[in-house]
Amino acid sequence: MTERPDARSEVGVGLVGYGFMGRAHSNAYRQVARFFEVDPAPRMAALCGRNEPRVREAARRLGWEGYETSYERLLEREDVQLIDISSSGDTHREFAVAALEAGKHVLCEKPLANTLDEAREMVEAAREAGTVNMVCHNYRRAPAVQLAKRLVDEGRIGEIRHWRAVYLQDWLLDPRTPLTWRLRRETGGAGPPADLGSHLVDLAHFLVGPIAEVIGTAETFIKERPLEGTDEMGEVTVSDAAAFLARFENGAIGTFEVSPLVPGRKAHERFEINGSNGSLVFDLERMNELEVYFEDEGPRSAGFHRVLVTEPEHPYMEGWWPPGHIIGYEHTFVHTVKDLLEGVREGRSPAPSFEDGLRCQAVLDAVERSVEEREWVSPQFYKPGAG
Amino acid sequence: MTERPDARSEVGVGLVGYGFMGRAHSNAYRQVARFFEVDPAPRMAALCGRNEPRVREAARRLGWEGYETSYERLLEREDVQLIDISSSGDTHREFAVAALEAGKHVLCEKPLANTLDEAREMVEAAREAGTVNMVCHNYRRAPAVQLAKRLVDEGRIGEIRHWRAVYLQDWLLDPRTPLTWRLRRETGGAGPPADLGSHLVDLAHFLVGPIAEVIGTAETFIKERPLEGTDEMGEVTVSDAAAFLARFENGAIGTFEVSPLVPGRKAHERFEINGSNGSLVFDLERMNELEVYFEDEGPRSAGFHRVLVTEPEHPYMEGWWPPGHIIGYEHTFVHTVKDLLEGVREGRSPAPSFEDGLRCQAVLDAVERSVEEREWVSPQFYKPGAG
Amino acid sequence: MTERPDARSEVGVGLVGYGFMGRAHSNAYRQVARFFEVDPAPRMAALCGRNEPRVREAARRLGWEGYETSYERLLEREDVQLIDISSSGDTHREFAVAALEAGKHVLCEKPLANTLDEAREMVEAAREAGTVNMVCHNYRRAPAVQLAKRLVDEGRIGEIRHWRAVYLQDWLLDPRTPLTWRLRRETGGAGPPADLGSHLVDLAHFLVGPIAEVIGTAETFIKERPLEGTDEMGEVTVSDAAAFLARFENGAIGTFEVSPLVPGRKAHERFEINGSNGSLVFDLERMNELEVYFEDEGPRSAGFHRVLVTEPEHPYMEGWWPPGHIIGYEHTFVHTVKDLLEGVREGRSPAPSFEDGLRCQAVLDAVERSVEEREWVSPQFYKPGAG
Amino acid sequence: MTERPDARSEVGVGLVGYGFMGRAHSNAYRQVARFFEVDPAPRMAALCGRNEPRVREAARRLGWEGYETSYERLLEREDVQLIDISSSGDTHREFAVAALEAGKHVLCEKPLANTLDEAREMVEAAREAGTVNMVCHNYRRAPAVQLAKRLVDEGRIGEIRHWRAVYLQDWLLDPRTPLTWRLRRETGGAGPPADLGSHLVDLAHFLVGPIAEVIGTAETFIKERPLEGTDEMGEVTVSDAAAFLARFENGAIGTFEVSPLVPGRKAHERFEINGSNGSLVFDLERMNELEVYFEDEGPRSAGFHRVLVTEPEHPYMEGWWPPGHIIGYEHTFVHTVKDLLEGVREGRSPAPSFEDGLRCQAVLDAVERSVEEREWVSPQFYKPGAG
Repeated sequence: MTERPDARSEVGVGLVGYGFMGRAHSNAYRQVARFFEVDPAPRMAALCGRNEPRVREAARRLGWEGYETSYERLLEREDVQLIDISSSGDTHREFAVAALEAGKHVLCEKPLANTLDEAREMVEAAREAGTVNMVCHNYRRAPAVQLAKRLVDEGRIGEIRHWRAVYLQDWLLDPRTPLTWRLRRETGGAGPPADLGSHLVDLAHFLVGPIAEVIGTAETFIKERPLEGTDEMGEVTVSDAAAFLARFENGAIGTFEVSPLVPGRKAHERFEINGSNGSLVFDLERMNELEVYFEDEGPRSAGFHRVLVTEPEHPYMEGWWPPGHIIGYEHTFVHTVKDLLEGVREGRSPAPSFEDGLRCQAVLDAVERSVEEREWVSPQFYKPGAG
Repeated sequence: MTERPDARSEVGVGLVGYGFMGRAHSNAYRQVARFFEVDPAPRMAALCGRNEPRVREAARRLGWEGYETSYERLLEREDVQLIDISSSGDTHREFAVAALEAGKHVLCEKPLANTLDEAREMVEAAREAGTVNMVCHNYRRAPAVQLAKRLVDEGRIGEIRHWRAVYLQDWLLDPRTPLTWRLRRETGGAGPPADLGSHLVDLAHFLVGPIAEVIGTAETFIKERPLEGTDEMGEVTVSDAAAFLARFENGAIGTFEVSPLVPGRKAHERFEINGSNGSLVFDLERMNELEVYFEDEGPRSAGFHRVLVTEPEHPYMEGWWPPGHIIGYEHTFVHTVKDLLEGVREGRSPAPSFEDGLRCQAVLDAVERSVEEREWVSPQFYKPGAG
Repeated sequence: MTERPDARSEVGVGLVGYGFMGRAHSNAYRQVARFFEVDPAPRMAALCGRNEPRVREAARRLGWEGYETSYERLLEREDVQLIDISSSGDTHREFAVAALEAGKHVLCEKPLANTLDEAREMVEAAREAGTVNMVCHNYRRAPAVQLAKRLVDEGRIGEIRHWRAVYLQDWLLDPRTPLTWRLRRETGGAGPPADLGSHLVDLAHFLVGPIAEVIGTAETFIKERPLEGTDEMGEVTVSDAAAFLARFENGAIGTFEVSPLVPGRKAHERFEINGSNGSLVFDLERMNELEVYFEDEGPRSAGFHRVLVTEPEHPYMEGWWPPGHIIGYEHTFVHTVKDLLEGVREGRSPAPSFEDGLRCQAVLDAVERSVEEREWVSPQFYKPGAG
Repeated sequence: MTERPDARSEVGVGLVGYGFMGRAHSNAYRQVARFFEVDPAPRMAALCGRNEPRVREAARRLGWEGYETSYERLLEREDVQLIDISSSGDTHREFAVAALEAGKHVLCEKPLANTLDEAREMVEAAREAGTVNMVCHNYRRAPAVQLAKRLVDEGRIGEIRHWRAVYLQDWLLDPRTPLTWRLRRETGGAGPPADLGSHLVDLAHFLVGPIAEVIGTAETFIKERPLEGTDEMGEVTVSDAAAFLARFENGAIGTFEVSPLVPGRKAHERFEINGSNGSLVFDLERMNELEVYFEDEGPRSAGFHRVLVTEPEHPYMEGWWPPGHIIGYEHTFVHTVKDLLEGVREGRSPAPSFEDGLRCQAVLDAVERSVEEREWVSPQFYKPGAG
C-alpha cells in the first residue's frame, strides 16, 4: 500500500475558468509531476466558477480536489498560493489584481488584458505584490521554439534581419459561424487580430527583441453573421483579419499576418527568422520540427535541416518519450507550468512576465491605432513608475 | 467541496511493469476519463513489481493507488478486474495465463509472446476464460491510421495491390550502445526485427488483410557490442535488421523492412498502400497527418492531400483540442484503453485480440524461418481447437 | 537529305543583349519550334552588341545566324521583324521606342524601364506603333502558375481575400560580393527590391487584380561593399531588402517581401492565395508543383493537394515529357515565346503587354514613395492619352 | 555575319529512332554545346528510320541535317562516327553490333538488350571494336545523383548498409490502356518490371556496388486489356509489377519495387541509402533536391538537409542557371552526351559502359528467374572471354 513518502513541497493551485483553456491548464497541473521532477509540486486545490453544478462536474472531470463558486472565497483559502486565471479576457484585470493583493502568485492566460490601461494596472499590482507572475504564452515552451531561441542566443544564425510570421486558421471561414462575443467590439476587444496576433508578437519579442514601430491594415471580410441561436443576422464589429509591418529596435524588418478565414490552415502559426548566418522556420502544425539552415555549412551540402526536436538533448524532451515519438499541443502547457513552479521555488517571475505581456499588448494597441490612423505608430512601452 | 457524484462504474486495474511501457500505460489510465466519456472508468488500483522501494516510488510517481510485490497477490485482489501486462516479453505467457485463469480481463503489450507456442497457449487460455483480451498494438489507434482504415473499408482506394512499410530507427546505430537483453537470442527472442516488425505486420493485417507467405533476409551489421557496465565485448546473437517480401491472401504484394541502424530516422514507421483507385501514406514521425490520393479527382488538380487529422470529424479527435492542435505518441495508448474499456462494458475483445496477436506472431515466425531456410514460408495460422 | 518542306511562315528575330537573360531568350527561340507547333516559327536572324569579338562568339555559341554591332543597323534589317530587348534596364526605353517606330514587334525584359516616365513613353510608342508588344514576365508561364490562374478564373477558390508573396534569395548575403551597378542608385534604379518585386507585383496583378494602395518599408543592411576589382569599399545607395502591404481594388489584402540576403533561400519566389473557398500555393524552387486546397472537399479528407503539374492536361505540358518528368526554369521562356508568336500571328499583344508592365512599375514606384514618405500611396496607373 | 571560328573538332552523329527517346537524345545533341564547352562538338548528321516521310519530318523537327532510311547506309557514311541507338529494345543487338563492327562509337538506350545472350554478344563486339561504348542510363547524370555518388565516395555516410528503391508510376493504372507491345512477352521482354527495374539496378550498382543475389515476386494485376484499335480484349503476358530483395557483395541489404499501377505516383523513382554515418534520399519528381543526413552533426541540430542541387559547386550546374533556378528531365541527357563526348575525346568508354549494362541485365535476369523458381538467384555476371 502507498503512503506519500514524497519530501517535495507542494503549492496549492486555484484555477479560475474551465473552458478550453481551463481544460488545458488542468491537464498541465495533473501531468507535470508525472513527467518532471518539480518542487514544489502542484496540488490541485480548487476550481472556481459561479455555476455550482457545472463547476462541481468540471472539477471532478478535470481532477481538482474541490471547487469554489466565489472568487473571494478562493482568495481567502490559505491552502491556495497560486491563482491561475483562465477565464475570459475582460475578467483578467479584476481577478489578477485581487489575487496579487491577496499575496498570491498569478499565472494569467494571454492576452494579459483587453486594454492597455488594464494591463498597466496589472503590472503595477504585480510590482507591488512581489509574488511570482507570468503570462501563459504557451507556444514559447514548444521544444522547437526553445531550440530556436538557443540557436539565436548562441549566435548561430548571426545578426537577425528578417522576421516573418503568420497565424492562419479557418475557424471563422464559414459565414454561418455565429456572432460570438469574440466578434463584438464591446466584449471581444480587438477581435481575432489581437487574439492571434498576441501569439506572434510574443514570439517576436522572445526571439528577435522589442518592436519599435508598426503599420498595419485590417479588414472585416464577413460583415454579418447569425446571432447565436436565432435566424437573425448581426453586425461583426471587429476586424477578422489583419497584417502589419514592423521595425525592430535592432534594425530587423518584420511582417505579421493573422486571419481565421484561410481555407486549409488549421493552426498554421509559422515563423521564419533570417540572420546574417542562418535561418530558422517553425510551424505549429508540425510543432515537433524546426527547420534550420546554417550558411557556414558551405554550398555543397547545405540545405534546410528538418530537425525532429525529440531528442533528450532538446529542451524539455528528457521528460517524455524516445526520439521520434512526438508530443502534442497540450505539452506546451505542461512545460509552462514546470517553469512556473521553478519560478515559485526561486521567487522570480519566469518570462513572459506581466511586464512582457504588457509590452506585447502595447504592440497590438499600436497596430490597431496604425490601422485607424493609417500611419506608423510606436508602441507605448511601460516605463516603471511612469505608468 | 467535491464528493464523487459519478454514476459511472469503475474497473480496477492492476499493471505489471513500470518501465517505458508502464509509464505510457499508466498515463493512458490517468488520462482516458479526463478526455472521453468512458464507462467503466479505470481505477488505478495497483502497480505490480518485485522490488519494493522501486515499485512504491513508481506507483506514487505514476499515479497508482497502491502496489503489490507479488503477482499472485495482485491476482487475488477482488478489486482488480483488469490486468495490464507491460513487463518484458518472456513473462507474458505466464502472467497472462494466470490472469485469465483467475477470471481477469487482460491487456498485453506486444509482441504477444516470445515464441509461437507461448502465444498459442495464451490464445487457448483466453478462449477458455471468456473474459476480454487485447494486445496493445497502439499504432492502430493513431487517428490517421483509423482514418486510413475507414477509407479502405469504404472502398475509396479500390482493390489493394501494394503495401510497403518500413520501421526505421537509429537507436542501435552507435556501436558503443551496450549489448542489452534485447540483443541476445535467449532473452530477446528474434530481436529488433521482431520487435519493430510486429508493428508493421499488425498494421498490414489491419489495413490489408492476412499474409499468405513471406520470404526475408536479415543481417547482424554490428556483430559485437560492449557488455553492460564493462569494457569487454560480447557477441550480438540476434539480427539487427531485416527485410521481407509478402504475398497477401487477397493478392496484394507487400514489402517490409526494419532497422534500428538508420541515421536520421528516429521513429520512421511509414506505410504506403496503393489500391486500384487511390493511395494512402502514413509516417509516425508526422502521426497527425495522412496523405491521401484519389484517382477519381481527375488529372488536373489531383495530388496527394496532406490531411491534418485533427478535425472533430476524425477518429478520437472530438476528445482533444481544436483543429490543427496536434496530439502526440502517448495519445495512441489513451485511445487503446478507451476502446478496451468499451470492450469490457460490452463483453467483447476489441481488435487486436490475442488471436490477432497470434496471427501477427505467426507471420514473424515465418519470416524468421524463411531467412534461415532461404525459402518462401507460409505463416502457421492458429486453427481453433487444432492448436 | 533534308530540304525544308515546312509551310510555316517565319519571323526574323533580333536580340539585344547576351548576358544571362540573352542566354535564356536565345534558348527559347532555339527550342520553341522543336516542342510546339508555332506559326510563325522564329528565325534567329541576329544578335546585337557593341563589342564585335564578343558578340560574334556569343552569336555562334547561342545559335544566331549572324550579329550586328549597331542597334541602328539591326533595326534597318528587313528580315528582322521582332526585336527582343534583353539588355540592362537603362537601355529599354531607347531601344524599344526606336524599334516600335521602325514598325517592329517588341519583346522587352522586365522591368519595363527604370523609371515610370520612361515606361509611360514606351507605352505611348507602343500604342502608336500598333505592332505586338510584350514584357517578359516569364514566371506567368510556369505551368503551375497558369493552372493557378485557371482555378482562380473558374471560381474554384471563391472570392480572393489574401495574397502573400515573398521573393527571397541569398545572392547578396556575402558582404564581400562587390558593389555592382545594380547596387548604385544612378544605374540600378530602385535596386533589388524593384528587381525582385516586379516579379511579385506582376503575379499579383495576374492572379488577384489591380493594387489600389501600398505602404512599405526598406533597409540597406549591408551599407558598403568592395568596389569591383579593388580593395576599396563603396557605399550601397539602394535598399537591399523591402516589405510592403497592399490593398487590392477587389478588397483583398496583400503582403509582399523581397530580400537577396536570406540564408538558404535560392530562388524562393513563393505566393499563397486564400479565397473564400480554397487556397493555392506556389514556390519557384519547386515550380512543377502547385498546392491546392478546396474547402468543399469536406473535413474528413480535405488537405493541401501537392499537384504535380506535369500532366498533358496541364498548361503547355503536352509539348514536353511524360507525367512526372519535370521541366526547368528556362522552359518558362519557351512558353513566353510560344505565346508571343501566337500574338504575332493574330496581331494582338499577349499579356503582360507594355501597359501591364507600366502598371507593375506604377506599383513599385508607389512602394518606393511610400517608404520615403512613410504613408500609404496609390499607384499612378496609366490613363491612355492622359500620360 | 558569322563564320564558324570554332577551333573545336566535331563528331558526326547518326541517331536511330525518333520516338520519345529520340526526341530526348536529339535535344541533348542540340543543346550540349550551347551550355558546355565540349570538344568534339556533336554534328547532327543524320536521323535514321524506315518510313521516309516520317523520318524526313522528324529530322526537320528535331534539328538533324539529314536523314537515312537504311541502317546500312547510315553506317557507310564516313561523316558519321557516333551511332546513337534509341530504337526499341529488340533492335539493339543488331544495330549495335553492326555499328561496332563498322568502327563506330555507340551510345545505346537502356536496357542494353532484351535478353542476356544478346547483351553478352554486344559486350563482346564492343571489346573487339575498341571504340567508345556507353549505355544511356541518364538518371545517373542528374546532378543530385552525382552529388550522392561523391558523398558516398568521400565516405561521408560511412559503410553502406541499406538501399531501398522504388520506381512507381501510374501509366498502366487505367485498365482501358491498350495492350501495347510492351505488355506481350514476345515483344516486351520482361515487361515493365525490367523496364523500370533497370533504372534502379543501374543506380544501385553505381551507388552501392555489385549485387550478389536476389529473390523477387511479381504479379500481373490487370490480366487483360483492349487490343489496340479494337474492342476485343487480349491477355497481358508479362508481369506488370514486381518487388525483390537483394544482397550486395559488400554486405548491404537492398529492397526494390517497381509498379506502373500506383495512383498518384508519376515518375516516383526514389532511393534511400543508409550508411553507418549518414543517409541520402533522392526522388526523381524533385530531381533538383537531395536529402542528406550526417550523423556527425550531433543530436541537437542534425536533421535531413534538403539540398537544392543548383549551386555552381554542384555537378554540371555551372553550365546552367543561377542557384535555385531548376533544371528538368531532359537535362540528364545533355549531361550524358557531355560525358560521352569527353569519352570520345579521350578514347575511353564512360560508365555505364556496355559491360555495366550487361551487369544490370544479369541482375534483372536473376530477378526473373528467382520469381519463377521461388528461390534466391545469383546474377551471372559476365567474365571477359568466358561469355
